[in-house]
Amino acid sequence: MTPSLASLSNRQIRLASRPVGLPDDSNWQFTTEAVAEPGDGGVLVRTQYLSLDPAMRGWMNDAKSYIPPVGIGEVMRAGGVGTVIASRHPDFPVGALVSAALGVQEYALIPADQVRRSGLVRIDPRLGSPTQWLNVLGLPGMTAYFGLLDIGQPQPGETVVVSGAAGAVGQTVGQLAKIKGCRVVGIAGGPAKCAWVVDELGFDACIDYKAPAPAGAVRWDPVREGLKQHCPQGVHVYFDNVGGDILDLVLTRLARKARIVICGAISQYNATTAVQGPKNYLSLLVHRARMEGMVVFDYVERFPVAVAELAGYLRDGRLKSREDVVEGFERFPAALLRLFSGANFGKLVLKVAD
Amino acid sequence: MTPSLASLSNRQIRLASRPVGLPDDSNWQFTTEAVAEPGDGGVLVRTQYLSLDPAMRGWMNDAKSYIPPVGIGEVMRAGGVGTVIASRHPDFPVGALVSAALGVQEYALIPADQVRRSGLVRIDPRLGSPTQWLNVLGLPGMTAYFGLLDIGQPQPGETVVVSGAAGAVGQTVGQLAKIKGCRVVGIAGGPAKCAWVVDELGFDACIDYKAPAPAGAVRWDPVREGLKQHCPQGVHVYFDNVGGDILDLVLTRLARKARIVICGAISQYNATTAVQGPKNYLSLLVHRARMEGMVVFDYVERFPVAVAELAGYLRDGRLKSREDVVEGFERFPAALLRLFSGANFGKLVLKVAD
Repeated sequence: MTPSLASLSNRQIRLASRPVGLPDDSNWQFTTEAVAEPGDGGVLVRTQYLSLDPAMRGWMNDAKSYIPPVGIGEVMRAGGVGTVIASRHPDFPVGALVSAALGVQEYALIPADQVRRSGLVRIDPRLGSPTQWLNVLGLPGMTAYFGLLDIGQPQPGETVVVSGAAGAVGQTVGQLAKIKGCRVVGIAGGPAKCAWVVDELGFDACIDYKAPAPAGAVRWDPVREGLKQHCPQGVHVYFDNVGGDILDLVLTRLARKARIVICGAISQYNATTAVQGPKNYLSLLVHRARMEGMVVFDYVERFPVAVAELAGYLRDGRLKSREDVVEGFERFPAALLRLFSGANFGKLVLKVAD
Repeated sequence: MTPSLASLSNRQIRLASRPVGLPDDSNWQFTTEAVAEPGDGGVLVRTQYLSLDPAMRGWMNDAKSYIPPVGIGEVMRAGGVGTVIASRHPDFPVGALVSAALGVQEYALIPADQVRRSGLVRIDPRLGSPTQWLNVLGLPGMTAYFGLLDIGQPQPGETVVVSGAAGAVGQTVGQLAKIKGCRVVGIAGGPAKCAWVVDELGFDACIDYKAPAPAGAVRWDPVREGLKQHCPQGVHVYFDNVGGDILDLVLTRLARKARIVICGAISQYNATTAVQGPKNYLSLLVHRARMEGMVVFDYVERFPVAVAELAGYLRDGRLKSREDVVEGFERFPAALLRLFSGANFGKLVLKVAD
């Protein structure tokens, strides 16, 4: 082992138990391991930034989904960017900036047989910053791109509504829909996010789902009112990141042949009772509309095309991005909770090292 | 007026009030009117059979849908077949057998400006019996044809599940899916319907959702068990006529890229509380599946193609049909309820006259 590696220790956060409702400290275990030298065809990556995603909550459940759950005692799964600090793989030399499923740990040893499965790729810092590579050029951007364009299929002039509009996926969905010639209405929590979405990102409107009732209002529902006001032609594409009541309200405002992209349902991920089904789903029938789920990993082969297009928009200034950076490896458990309270503003990332 | 018409009186059933839950006698008003001579371009039709459909329940509500509700005091909307007995329209001579929205009445006067809107068409008795023209060659058959083929898009070898399998739409969905090379599993209530669906119609299996628990069973759900047993590859196409718990159970068994056709939700039409939303809808995400609504009237231009194909299968004996005929105009209110208890076996029609 090289002397420099021998001096390093790797802090890790492992899944200690499966949460019921919101995760708490009892669900995590902090461990420290020695850093090991990569074997033939493997690499060792020093984590710089980790991506904190709503989907992580699902991986903590013992339930069949599009990928297996994280096992009890395993390092928590997380995507991240980092630098190769030891390598026996010709494509990933020492010093290369890479993105991969690094896990919640300071150093990720990726053996040869895990290179492909971890999604290890070199990333080009000229196209975007490391945090942008976890946001608009990473899985959230890919999710926005393929979910909106392949599943939502927006046409110029149509109205696109996106929930979680200031979040990782929503910010790119809305800006991309604007670039494609749509009218775009966001839904986000609080005046600051709504103002940013409209003033900085150029959405046509943003509905603050937390807006307090105006004086004298009897039945106040800001989303119901906002949709009525901002979607006079109905909703042609709804990109749903939240589920729950907001999905149900959008269902009441569909345009004929509307497409609902089911990307996530963050309002439901910590539910301790059954998920809230969309009771207005028969609106799909009335409006000949469709609701369709998508999983970004199905589009891996086409990621380079999407990255090239989105990086072009970034360079031109037509696409902006915002990341909410929490610093400090040990703050992972608390930072993750920000997603579920809506406290994050932009793509949530954890800064682990410079 | 011709002497023969002057002697006729027209019994009608009108919507007296909007039901809460299941319709009862207080929701109906029986009236009798004189029969009037058609004006220029109009026809007078003597009703022979009326179609009784789950959708009727929706038309009784004061709710925006794909067609306006029936107004209080109006003759209840119903499709039917009958014979032209007076005509001032060259395309519909006296004696012609026709299908149209006749309404729940013994005689339907269709003025010139309503000919198109009523869907008035001549029907060919050589292609099918009058009741088949309300079933496989009528709106249920059209719904099955376009819902299955256009929305469901089944591929040979895929597994198609259809609820209400012995009902008007379901019987044709299943047989058509068999003709297209699919594995077909029906869901129906009771051993007689299930046996008919398998033995006569050739479905691969039928799940009796009313099946009693076998001795010693702890948690018994015949649909859950049946889907597990009969859909080992998962469900590629689910044609949903019922909604509710059965939809939720099918959602747990989807194959990747499955298509759910939302045709109806008879389990929910008389609900006095909110419709039961599919709490397992996030299965659409996990399985990259789609749920899409359809309204048969969107396909009117293509009805002749579907009728020709289905009539060909009827003639060849590859397609069978079953109608449940209730005789007697005055039995309309009671007959309609058979739909909601699942008492009907086959397409429910009311025989009004020979």
